[in-house]
Amino acid sequence: MLTLFHHPLVASCRYVRLSCAEYGEELQLIDEKPWLRRPELLEMNPAGTLPVLLAEGDTPIVGAGVIAEYLDETRGALMRERRLYGDDPFTRAEVRRLVDWYLVKTDNEVTRHLVRERAFKPLMTSMQGGGSPDSAAIRAARANVKPHMKYTNWLAGTRDWLAGDRLSYADLAAAAALSVLDYLGEVPWEDYRAARDWYGRIKSRPSFRPLLADRAPGLSPVSHYADLDF
Amino acid sequence: MLTLFHHPLVASCRYVRLSCAEYGEELQLIDEKPWLRRPELLEMNPAGTLPVLLAEGDTPIVGAGVIAEYLDETRGALMRERRLYGDDPFTRAEVRRLVDWYLVKTDNEVTRHLVRERAFKPLMTSMQGGGSPDSAAIRAARANVKPHMKYTNWLAGTRDWLAGDRLSYADLAAAAALSVLDYLGEVPWEDYRAARDWYGRIKSRPSFRPLLADRAPGLSPVSHYADLDF
Repeated sequence: MLTLFHHPLVASCRYVRLSCAEYGEELQLIDEKPWLRRPELLEMNPAGTLPVLLAEGDTPIVGAGVIAEYLDETRGALMRERRLYGDDPFTRAEVRRLVDWYLVKTDNEVTRHLVRERAFKPLMTSMQGGGSPDSAAIRAARANVKPHMKYTNWLAGTRDWLAGDRLSYADLAAAAALSVLDYLGEVPWEDYRAARDWYGRIKSRPSFRPLLADRAPGLSPVSHYADLDF
Repeated sequence: MLTLFHHPLVASCRYVRLSCAEYGEELQLIDEKPWLRRPELLEMNPAGTLPVLLAEGDTPIVGAGVIAEYLDETRGALMRERRLYGDDPFTRAEVRRLVDWYLVKTDNEVTRHLVRERAFKPLMTSMQGGGSPDSAAIRAARANVKPHMKYTNWLAGTRDWLAGDRLSYADLAAAAALSVLDYLGEVPWEDYRAARDWYGRIKSRPSFRPLLADRAPGLSPVSHYADLDF
């Protein structure tokens, strides 16, 4: 079994869990508090970031994008229509562009700020950078939710799945990011009907079930979080 | 011929130029000022970031990592030992980890801050966010040069090339980032002998020559920038 070092509210960790589940790959999960920068984690990944996958032979594979390529090369390439990339280089480029969008751009503009301020800081000591949430940072991140939801709504309204006519890594990356924001109650679904329908479809997949059972220490999810009919 | 929308001091644009040159792919270069967010650029890439490659059939391929995978799939996979990824999934994961290191981590901690403050801001109007450089941002970025140079020195001192025993995308990503910092005179080469020897080897490659001829408007490179014997 592969091992994943992760945190339940880090979008790129959720992305890897969804990807493995879609490929039928069981994971042993090890919870990390990323702000602790444990020596064992730093030895596997000198950048100290999550996720890290311990693959065959206990080789650490570092970072969501790198792990997704690894899973594609060692699993996905044999999966035909269930492959989470498309069939041709242009489709794959579009899938990768959207994965970057949700795991890098959305993360930098929205997700990680809300997670840090609302979920991590209350658990961190002042030496670790903890303390009261920075309301200016929260406001800025919240203002950025709208353009990302608009874009998701546009994609979901013009395509069957976000990157084209079948489920891909792009859907998993978007669902990973939005499910973290949804946990925090930060997604105004009622304003984005197409995005909501798409998210409902993703949320009903068996791969999503473990994420709906996630509970972050000290912070309960919004009431509709695990609701398939939200 | 492929077309690249780029800026000469954006590390990830340099990375694509080096990658194409190593694959013998000629590029038509279109200079972009990334802070202008031209409508034509936004149409190809709604994120408004560089680089964007116009590939076959004028299809835009967006972002350095995505472009590198595209080039690998359409060119590299046929190149045997000249392929810029390794031969097995683990080596490729290590190459990708290091590409992320230099184009994302180094960029976020060092490169783009120094470029913005020293090269972009003097050309930007105050409406565009221009003005005098933020000396605190410059100081913070400069303090981060050291760990990145130490890490590069360690890699260069323990491996033939940064990701293993042959030239890879990892070397091109590191060279792209460090050559931008070198242009700005921000690399204390004398303290990092192994990194310097490695950089000297990369710098002598034909693929590097066009980068050494780059001149950013209003900002000359440090005197040794184009020197192969620096």
